[in-house]
Amino acid sequence: MAGPNELMAAIADVGADRRRGGYSRHVFDDAERELREWFVEQAEARGLRVTTDQNANIWAWWGEPGDDAVVTGSHLDSVPGGGAFDGPLGVVSALSAVDLLRAKGFTPRKPLAVVVFAEEEGGRFGVPCLGSRLLAGTIDADRARALRDPNGVTFAEAMRSFGADPARLGRDDAALRSIGQFVELHVEQGRGLIDLDRPVAVASSILAHGRWRFRFSGQGNHAGATLIADRHDPMLPASRLVLEARRTAAGVDGGRATVGRLVPNPGGTNVIASTVDIWLDARSPDDRSTRSMVEDLSSAAAEFAASEGCQVEVTEESYGDTVHFDAAFRDRLAGLLGDAPALPTGAGHDAGILAAEVPTAMLFVRNPTGISHAPEEHAEPGDCDSGAHALAQVLEDLAG
Amino acid sequence: MAGPNELMAAIADVGADRRRGGYSRHVFDDAERELREWFVEQAEARGLRVTTDQNANIWAWWGEPGDDAVVTGSHLDSVPGGGAFDGPLGVVSALSAVDLLRAKGFTPRKPLAVVVFAEEEGGRFGVPCLGSRLLAGTIDADRARALRDPNGVTFAEAMRSFGADPARLGRDDAALRSIGQFVELHVEQGRGLIDLDRPVAVASSILAHGRWRFRFSGQGNHAGATLIADRHDPMLPASRLVLEARRTAAGVDGGRATVGRLVPNPGGTNVIASTVDIWLDARSPDDRSTRSMVEDLSSAAAEFAASEGCQVEVTEESYGDTVHFDAAFRDRLAGLLGDAPALPTGAGHDAGILAAEVPTAMLFVRNPTGISHAPEEHAEPGDCDSGAHALAQVLEDLAG
Repeated sequence: MAGPNELMAAIADVGADRRRGGYSRHVFDDAERELREWFVEQAEARGLRVTTDQNANIWAWWGEPGDDAVVTGSHLDSVPGGGAFDGPLGVVSALSAVDLLRAKGFTPRKPLAVVVFAEEEGGRFGVPCLGSRLLAGTIDADRARALRDPNGVTFAEAMRSFGADPARLGRDDAALRSIGQFVELHVEQGRGLIDLDRPVAVASSILAHGRWRFRFSGQGNHAGATLIADRHDPMLPASRLVLEARRTAAGVDGGRATVGRLVPNPGGTNVIASTVDIWLDARSPDDRSTRSMVEDLSSAAAEFAASEGCQVEVTEESYGDTVHFDAAFRDRLAGLLGDAPALPTGAGHDAGILAAEVPTAMLFVRNPTGISHAPEEHAEPGDCDSGAHALAQVLEDLAG
Repeated sequence: MAGPNELMAAIADVGADRRRGGYSRHVFDDAERELREWFVEQAEARGLRVTTDQNANIWAWWGEPGDDAVVTGSHLDSVPGGGAFDGPLGVVSALSAVDLLRAKGFTPRKPLAVVVFAEEEGGRFGVPCLGSRLLAGTIDADRARALRDPNGVTFAEAMRSFGADPARLGRDDAALRSIGQFVELHVEQGRGLIDLDRPVAVASSILAHGRWRFRFSGQGNHAGATLIADRHDPMLPASRLVLEARRTAAGVDGGRATVGRLVPNPGGTNVIASTVDIWLDARSPDDRSTRSMVEDLSSAAAEFAASEGCQVEVTEESYGDTVHFDAAFRDRLAGLLGDAPALPTGAGHDAGILAAEVPTAMLFVRNPTGISHAPEEHAEPGDCDSGAHALAQVLEDLAG
């Protein structure tokens, strides 16, 4: 029997990123494999039956696997230099909830499973929620196999190195059919619970969001020998787009647009870049305004590129429409948890992918910094315990 | 006996960069070590006596090493994704000139040496002309030992891995005393010889130039969950500085300012960066206007940072004042070479470092693309032959 804080402490050293700060745990890298092994050990120690599905997601079953199961879980991977809680808190809380239910003598009437989804952050292959998208069939398996990490390794190659068969990737009808309800617990990634002075909330919605790569191409050249008038420097239009993204998002109610990844090639100090890749993360409350931001920014990018004698190519790497979680299910959980508040989120989640397939809900645990995807992300031990107890209560209600 | 084109062909596969294009050959990496070994073999096959000095520069002596030597050479390292000719053309032309002089029965009256300088581009440790700066004592040895590559390896550690002793780094009076005159042949990095329709020029001057790192610090956070109004995103002031650098340089006669290297940390697509490092390469015809550009840009950077609730820290990584090559020496060479034209350059060179210590000159070989520090950099075989013959003629005159 272990509480969430004890389980979090057990993995506190895995994937610590000395250079960036925080944690870097990416699908199939050493740290993520160690976390997978740790999860399997923990699940087996609890007598759960562990399987890894065709899409590299791990399932740990309490009772016979079967249909109409109550499924909970989250992910173990991180963004580069991310916080400790985003993902792992949902997994350790699920294990802890199993312990809490066992300790009170509960036996689930329905099958109950803890799931760990692969590559939720898209930190290695660029597409977030890759494991759940594959499970749900919302990304083409061929496209997934061909995704490349920054070193040029494909997802198919990485999967083979891991010992799994990429030929089996794709929609998993049996797994989908088995899920009666899905509940994901997650650290909150904003300040909602701080403002409300509450430890736990339920989720109401997820912003429409996606990722677009803008590749600006110019003419690489010598930084000292090339006259200003002779330049076609793709860093110029790329920088203008960063600023335009901010301006555009500021003009959209609830809009966000971010460039957190920018890669000049070749990247030498005394070299005018030949290409600059920037990734736009754009989000807003609805599909129309998100699409419209990206269209405006694509037009602006073309104009910025042309004015420097450069070209630009825009590629959509991922997109998900607004998710409104099942209102009745959400209200049932909120009621169980003493009228827990309902909060929207700007962050994407595997729960947002599954919501299109099965009744899905989320629990949020208070984050006293309000910061996420950074080392400052936090949850107090007492709040983590409250989260695990809340999840246990929900699972007891759903599976009892 | 080998011509420059044959020698260039022999190293055409070493350090080819499949990802960036062109060549990536950085001090003490596999490719650069292979080039060092190749050079030593080539020199020894010509009966030259090879030594590596305390600063990792390689010397190949024709005749007894001694004072008042005629020294020629260049470098074998490249910028990331650089061209084939920048550096190696000067080295292979020197070897080829030895062959040409031998073939005509010439025996030098003075000692003659071919030198290969280490880390001329600063492509790994950030300071250009590191080998020649150390030789001349214009960089502090402690500072050089502590320089770090992008993986955090220090120059001292890299030197030890190479089998050399970093404790011995620093001004090399014996080597400096031995150099009577220094001549570096280099591919031209602009369009001067194209416009003049000539294969070979002599150098008149090098722009005042340097490198400054701007580290913008903000608050890393979630790209979806963080409201625009709550952001302190260092990518914003960094992007404004890229644009301001262009504007500033365009307003300075002969000024250039470039950001070719920009690194957001942690660099995730769905992550607001916590820091962004950008490197400014700034150059102009004189010290005053170069310094003034950097001061203006430092003030602008502070203002841009403050307006986003960020901080900025500026570090000078290298600087070199304008170099005017010895006019009498330059004219002597131009006269020898049929009134070769004299051209200024915006590119830095080891010759620019040595010019403060010994009579120094440069020969430029026409580059039909006008492009350098990029795969398109080129020199026609006939022009490379002309360059090697010109260098042989110069060495014969100086050492005969």
